[in-house]
Amino acid sequence: MKTLLTNVHVLTMDAAYTEFNPGFISIVDDKITAVGAMENLPTDLHERVLDGKGALAIPGMINTHTHIGMIPFRSLGDDTPDRLTRFLFPLEQSRMTASLAYHSGKYAIAEMQLAGITTFFDMYYFEDELAQATDEMGSRAILAETVLEKAPDTGKPYGGLEYAAAFIPKWLEHPLITPAVAPHAPYTNSSESLKQAFALAEKYDVPFSLHVSEMTFEMDKYASEYNQTPVAYLAGLGVLDARTLAAHCIFATDADIALLKETNVAVAHCIGANTKSAKGIAPIQAMLDAEVRVGLGTDGPSSGNTLDLFSQMKMVAYFHKTALKNRAAFPTRDIVRLATIGGAEALGMADQIGSIEPGKQADITLIETDSVNMFPIFDPYAVLVYSAQAHNVRDVFVAGNPVVIDKQLVHADLRDLRSHLNKEMTNFRSEVEKRAEE
Amino acid sequence: MKTLLTNVHVLTMDAAYTEFNPGFISIVDDKITAVGAMENLPTDLHERVLDGKGALAIPGMINTHTHIGMIPFRSLGDDTPDRLTRFLFPLEQSRMTASLAYHSGKYAIAEMQLAGITTFFDMYYFEDELAQATDEMGSRAILAETVLEKAPDTGKPYGGLEYAAAFIPKWLEHPLITPAVAPHAPYTNSSESLKQAFALAEKYDVPFSLHVSEMTFEMDKYASEYNQTPVAYLAGLGVLDARTLAAHCIFATDADIALLKETNVAVAHCIGANTKSAKGIAPIQAMLDAEVRVGLGTDGPSSGNTLDLFSQMKMVAYFHKTALKNRAAFPTRDIVRLATIGGAEALGMADQIGSIEPGKQADITLIETDSVNMFPIFDPYAVLVYSAQAHNVRDVFVAGNPVVIDKQLVHADLRDLRSHLNKEMTNFRSEVEKRAEE
Ligand SMILES: [Zn+2]
Ligand SMILES: [Zn+2]
Repeated sequence: MKTLLTNVHVLTMDAAYTEFNPGFISIVDDKITAVGAMENLPTDLHERVLDGKGALAIPGMINTHTHIGMIPFRSLGDDTPDRLTRFLFPLEQSRMTASLAYHSGKYAIAEMQLAGITTFFDMYYFEDELAQATDEMGSRAILAETVLEKAPDTGKPYGGLEYAAAFIPKWLEHPLITPAVAPHAPYTNSSESLKQAFALAEKYDVPFSLHVSEMTFEMDKYASEYNQTPVAYLAGLGVLDARTLAAHCIFATDADIALLKETNVAVAHCIGANTKSAKGIAPIQAMLDAEVRVGLGTDGPSSGNTLDLFSQMKMVAYFHKTALKNRAAFPTRDIVRLATIGGAEALGMADQIGSIEPGKQADITLIETDSVNMFPIFDPYAVLVYSAQAHNVRDVFVAGNPVVIDKQLVHADLRDLRSHLNKEMTNFRSEVEKRAEE
Repeated sequence: MKTLLTNVHVLTMDAAYTEFNPGFISIVDDKITAVGAMENLPTDLHERVLDGKGALAIPGMINTHTHIGMIPFRSLGDDTPDRLTRFLFPLEQSRMTASLAYHSGKYAIAEMQLAGITTFFDMYYFEDELAQATDEMGSRAILAETVLEKAPDTGKPYGGLEYAAAFIPKWLEHPLITPAVAPHAPYTNSSESLKQAFALAEKYDVPFSLHVSEMTFEMDKYASEYNQTPVAYLAGLGVLDARTLAAHCIFATDADIALLKETNVAVAHCIGANTKSAKGIAPIQAMLDAEVRVGLGTDGPSSGNTLDLFSQMKMVAYFHKTALKNRAAFPTRDIVRLATIGGAEALGMADQIGSIEPGKQADITLIETDSVNMFPIFDPYAVLVYSAQAHNVRDVFVAGNPVVIDKQLVHADLRDLRSHLNKEMTNFRSEVEKRAEE
């Protein structure tokens, strides 16, 4: 199948930030075969032609950290200080089921597709069902089974290890899905479980992820018990290498950053979730200066509430400029980079995705410029960061296949997804009502 | 004309935060006459009935500080440190015309209407044309002619005073428009011009506004020249009273806050613009604790880039929770308050607008809950602050008249507005190209 996208303003996000305006993108099967100016439009036959009508064409956006099973928790107890122990953990343990995770996953993937996200890194439970959901929706993903002492998808302590040992080989050959394993965090997991999870990731050569340096009590614990930072502690366990994606790293010290660079660990920066919970602002300028790989993450729908990277890009600009007291810091092109090729680098997938270049996978997001907020355009990067919102995403392709056309899902009906999820939430809702009254 | 809105989740934003779900709102001509639960739906004849289909109904949102003539500047030189002197001031002086301001104004009002804003406070030049634009679009506004030594709409030094003296009486009787006067800032204006502008506001009993405590150099100037803060300096000039709306107040000290309270000055908080330019975070928790009236502002489309208060509400939550290191600070209901009745209080209009109560003006915004980002809804305030975006606004009424229905403008065609504005921007664009090359 040959597809031709015409009349788009292409931001390739290649190393030279090449732009074509007006430009075209030619796709054969799952790959980009050509990109250029409209005056050099290929003349060979394309079975599918989409007139971009002046849309901005960017690489499909990459969400490096989320928990797609958690849509049911969104807007629940947001400003409650004891939210985690009052709502999240107990509801997750008692009311999260394979079926609820599956329907939440499909809904969350739909939301990400409609927001122009083509690749995401999930860590949650019931990853087998989430892989099924991802396959049905046609998105690209790294799906990591969470390892924690107590988990809703296993009756055994650290049963996620056994789950992952079965889950990983099952999905290893899928063209769009990479299975993985993810202990929750150093402070919630035994050192043995961290090492076993890492050994499993090494055995199958798959990604490994966990939350790191996210909590002040976490920092205090490692300081008092080990006289170390969590990053140094994890390095000591031998679980940091190029396959490791560390989410948050809010309190990373300069020494931590040097260690992240030395071990080639990547960081998922979740500015929205981190600041909504008043935790703080990760020092990603210093990480980028040290050439640590950094991508952006929405975190789960209960932590960050939105599953789009436009919200995150805005907050990266606003928060880091303010924290650095420098309005020229984090120019918008660098922020769009974080949401695309930067994310691909963080996931170790930059050879396949993250930029619009011949030979790469055809993961492409078109953003319309007709809506009221998209005028004028002196600088397309500034428009993407400061003005654009998820709703401006019009068409989305993953591996050459459309998943969103004219702001509508291709592989599902949104109303159906919602009504299924809503039905699955019946027991969840009754438990919420019980807890809210307590 | 009697209008009935049915099947809405009404957040009245009255003093008790009364909600009706499902509820109705009954409107006669320009006023709300009844609000209640669907089971008490009035049975008398309404000529116009709108089925709200589960939408959230909130008071029309109130943007307390913007510059609607500045759409042409959006996305121009955003991350340029010398932006103001390189682009904004010279372009404004040489290329801003009555006609360009008018077309920008109409476009900006359209953008605000589509985002659920029913009332705005503008300060710019050519306010007579902006009043014409506001009248044609059917929005409610306070329109303040800017007073500055050099201005594009007058050849005389501080000619804005003369302009305002003619402009104010001309529009004083308009049902939706309140004319006003606004010196740019203490540091750009002579003390004489500040006092003359204030005297004019007093003479006609209209609002008075200016930018205050926004710049570090401003703070340094008043410290070194007067051993005072700008707020204390303005108090000394006698230009602070209940009619005064101070935009920004980023660097307000505790003594300043006490003085703002004592003089009954209101504050327009523009968190997006303030942080995008790395200026800082105004201490609005302390202001609210001191019972200073505070509303939210988008600032102009070149400073804040978006003209919607959903973006601002999110940033109020994220920034203030982080600055105060308290995730429970600024609960979402309080933030929705700032965008509605808080804004009305700041503009001195709380007797007319800002809440959905019988007797008040029927300024109402309906926000659909069908889009992917609007599910589930455990807490409607959290959904409004953390999840909703401008695009979710579906229907908007000002003084009982629809200005947006089904996400479409009632009083204009968006494509026409854009093509007119774009045509008017021809000279502006050629000057931009010249300056970009310099
Ligand atoms: Zn997380
Ligand atoms: Zn301003």
